[in-house]
Amino acid sequence: MSNARSHRMDRDVPLLVPEVNPGHLRLLEDQDVPDGAGIITNPNCSTIGVAMVLGPLHRAFGVERVHVVTLQALSGAGMPGVPAMAIQDNVLPFIEGEEEKLESEPRKILGRLGRAGGGIDEAQLSISAQCTRVPVSDGHMAMVSIQLGERVEVEAVRAVLSDFRGLPQELGLPSAPRRPIHVLDEPTAPQPRLHRDREQGMAVSVGRVRPCPLTDVRMAILSHNTVRGAAGGALLCAELAIAEERIPGITPPVPTDDR
Amino acid sequence: MSNARSHRMDRDVPLLVPEVNPGHLRLLEDQDVPDGAGIITNPNCSTIGVAMVLGPLHRAFGVERVHVVTLQALSGAGMPGVPAMAIQDNVLPFIEGEEEKLESEPRKILGRLGRAGGGIDEAQLSISAQCTRVPVSDGHMAMVSIQLGERVEVEAVRAVLSDFRGLPQELGLPSAPRRPIHVLDEPTAPQPRLHRDREQGMAVSVGRVRPCPLTDVRMAILSHNTVRGAAGGALLCAELAIAEERIPGITPPVPTDDR
Amino acid sequence: MSNARSHRMDRDVPLLVPEVNPGHLRLLEDQDVPDGAGIITNPNCSTIGVAMVLGPLHRAFGVERVHVVTLQALSGAGMPGVPAMAIQDNVLPFIEGEEEKLESEPRKILGRLGRAGGGIDEAQLSISAQCTRVPVSDGHMAMVSIQLGERVEVEAVRAVLSDFRGLPQELGLPSAPRRPIHVLDEPTAPQPRLHRDREQGMAVSVGRVRPCPLTDVRMAILSHNTVRGAAGGALLCAELAIAEERIPGITPPVPTDDR
Amino acid sequence: MSNARSHRMDRDVPLLVPEVNPGHLRLLEDQDVPDGAGIITNPNCSTIGVAMVLGPLHRAFGVERVHVVTLQALSGAGMPGVPAMAIQDNVLPFIEGEEEKLESEPRKILGRLGRAGGGIDEAQLSISAQCTRVPVSDGHMAMVSIQLGERVEVEAVRAVLSDFRGLPQELGLPSAPRRPIHVLDEPTAPQPRLHRDREQGMAVSVGRVRPCPLTDVRMAILSHNTVRGAAGGALLCAELAIAEERIPGITPPVPTDDR
Repeated sequence: MSNARSHRMDRDVPLLVPEVNPGHLRLLEDQDVPDGAGIITNPNCSTIGVAMVLGPLHRAFGVERVHVVTLQALSGAGMPGVPAMAIQDNVLPFIEGEEEKLESEPRKILGRLGRAGGGIDEAQLSISAQCTRVPVSDGHMAMVSIQLGERVEVEAVRAVLSDFRGLPQELGLPSAPRRPIHVLDEPTAPQPRLHRDREQGMAVSVGRVRPCPLTDVRMAILSHNTVRGAAGGALLCAELAIAEERIPGITPPVPTDDR
Repeated sequence: MSNARSHRMDRDVPLLVPEVNPGHLRLLEDQDVPDGAGIITNPNCSTIGVAMVLGPLHRAFGVERVHVVTLQALSGAGMPGVPAMAIQDNVLPFIEGEEEKLESEPRKILGRLGRAGGGIDEAQLSISAQCTRVPVSDGHMAMVSIQLGERVEVEAVRAVLSDFRGLPQELGLPSAPRRPIHVLDEPTAPQPRLHRDREQGMAVSVGRVRPCPLTDVRMAILSHNTVRGAAGGALLCAELAIAEERIPGITPPVPTDDR
Repeated sequence: MSNARSHRMDRDVPLLVPEVNPGHLRLLEDQDVPDGAGIITNPNCSTIGVAMVLGPLHRAFGVERVHVVTLQALSGAGMPGVPAMAIQDNVLPFIEGEEEKLESEPRKILGRLGRAGGGIDEAQLSISAQCTRVPVSDGHMAMVSIQLGERVEVEAVRAVLSDFRGLPQELGLPSAPRRPIHVLDEPTAPQPRLHRDREQGMAVSVGRVRPCPLTDVRMAILSHNTVRGAAGGALLCAELAIAEERIPGITPPVPTDDR
Repeated sequence: MSNARSHRMDRDVPLLVPEVNPGHLRLLEDQDVPDGAGIITNPNCSTIGVAMVLGPLHRAFGVERVHVVTLQALSGAGMPGVPAMAIQDNVLPFIEGEEEKLESEPRKILGRLGRAGGGIDEAQLSISAQCTRVPVSDGHMAMVSIQLGERVEVEAVRAVLSDFRGLPQELGLPSAPRRPIHVLDEPTAPQPRLHRDREQGMAVSVGRVRPCPLTDVRMAILSHNTVRGAAGGALLCAELAIAEERIPGITPPVPTDDR
């Protein structure tokens, strides 16, 4: 269960967002490793929130083009990470390697599983990503503008996001948020300090869902980068893999009602 | 000489960026006010940097569509402005009224002067603006993606911006920056704390000029919001109006060589 | 149960830190109000952490003089409070009215209950307070240097603080921290972001307990200003008043073991 | 001319604040080095502001005891220095090695030159220093409480600081501030962002000069740590050494009136 970038784009490795592409776990069968060992990867912390939103929209309407500008938190850079003097009273317009990931990973996550051994057929959507660093401890914000495959009202977009539930919710996995996407109505939401910890940091918050003069819909997406975007996300992947009996020797616990 | 938003879009009022649309001063002739009094306006502080960049690009190649996400400084909200508790360790995804200005003002600034009394024929470009507030004292950053009217190499874009000079430079106006646009090559530029004070805050800094998968070119634009974007910008408008003998009773000073 | 400053120093009003001076509740008997109504006050948010530390030290060794410099959080100023532009990349060396409270309130809190109707005999200690505001959301830090009534080893000071328990702990009040004072040994503790939430924000953290060249002992004290220093502190006062049957008509709940 | 800590306390090395102890340059004569080479040192950046204030007070009234708590800027830690995640929404109550320097260096700076070869007789004052790091880019603040050798009115203290001029001012050295100490009267001064750049960062700002219940006088001292406290301070030392003809082979420039 890896949060590193190394094998994410390998043909036979699932790049997993449990609510969005749980079926990609089948790629494990293509991994030619002894004793049932295998690699499951987690997307980049800036990808997760965006992929979680694009997933249900792609299924409902198709997604064709996405403009995204991120405002990323300091904890995303690890420790020691960004020197305080580099970011004090400042914003950095560049994060090494980040835009490439955000432009490529969602295409794989939203892609379709091909025939056995065939990897993933990437989704045909184009993304332009501009990644910035801001003086915030935790919580990545993404301002997005999305061209869908069909003309829809903004209300339909909002409903799809609000109603979205995935396999982790269905299975009642321990780390799964009850609602993966919280659609917020106040014009000033979401905000990192106020909303990053929703559902123990496992829910993605979305706000300002509104029409765009250039595409179909715009919105602001917030996710907790070290929880949903890293450790918590990997944990949920593991819980899904166990529940799906993808980890030899570990049987899923019998669920109880009183969690 | 007004920095307020009230009359900016009036048919007979110049909305002036001295380097970009000095000819719009002629609108003063359409203002039916006694004794030669009149109103000249300055654009919104988030518009200035963007308009300064779009101006020369529009003249050279045409500009058709612009996606812009701003990361705006605290001083833009005036005093008392944003409460510290609202922005501490935080980012705000909304600034009241700001996106409307940024989507409309550049169309007027880049427009053409019509016949006498006819106001400005707005430029036919579409802008999508998403405005955020970040914990930075001064310096508005804008991440933009621009669709031009013709296909050009990024190098041509960079050259147009670098070489750009306007009437204030030609006239040697006292507050005019020597180079209105500083094109920076380091991947981590521009940054508010490092670059906002270039040429006493009157120059706009541009960095990360590069291709975009969805449009023709992307870049990061930084301008000092209270200098170039407000007081300093208004001062330069006044200097231009005097130099152009648009202010009755004030004759332009004879320029000297040793400024 | 008031967190306002208005009646704190009134002769017949308890200024209560439940762990330190629970007996002061008796002052309620001196309040000449109908129907058993009465006022209990909570100290200023900058006083609480300091008083919680001075309480056990005063009982054990006597406290004679205290130098304190505070680094106070933004939330202490309420909303809208400090404008962001006033504190961005800055520190304020002055907080209106704060030093007077910090120099006087502990004298009453550490004082002795006199005869009925006689109010509190204030403790004979002198405090010099210098209060600053820093760009931190929550958590007041106080750097103190304390002259005790007798010469003691630093280890004895540390033990008194570590071992301190008060009536709220004895009674098992719902909001009482298990240990009112957490003595931390790492040289870089306490820190607002890391330690303010200990025991749901109700514990005070103390670090850098060490000798002082000018007094007996120095240390850094951290308390959560809006929890322990305001709402949570008032709640604990109420819980104590109920448990002590000081609120007519409300009988204390029978404690259970399984909290 | 060294800004490093290595030789500051060496018996035969001047630890120089040009306004305060210019005569200590004579120690160069005790340095047994060939060809007139020698070492002059600059105090620690947290010491400079405090020493600049204690200097004239010590000469006027004697200084006996000083309590000081610093709020130090990020740039004092150099690059990469403090990780952003360590100080975001936070304060650090400890800076390695800093308190020792602040407690010892002023004793040497304020000391008297002994006989040839005898080094400096340290001043008999005791200092208690507690050093904290705050999220500010530049400008060290020190909150001090000072016990003088005689009882004086606060007004006398203020006058001594305001009127203070040293040899650099008398000689008109190029980097010397016109007034080494700016005494500010507004209750909210000094502040790092507003006052650190006074006289190109070479002046020290002092505010809140007022009585102390425990000593004679309290105040807040601000100095620009990387200018006056480092590079600029070293430059002024060099200018003084040249003016005093302490650097073999370099003759002082003839002063002119029109600087």
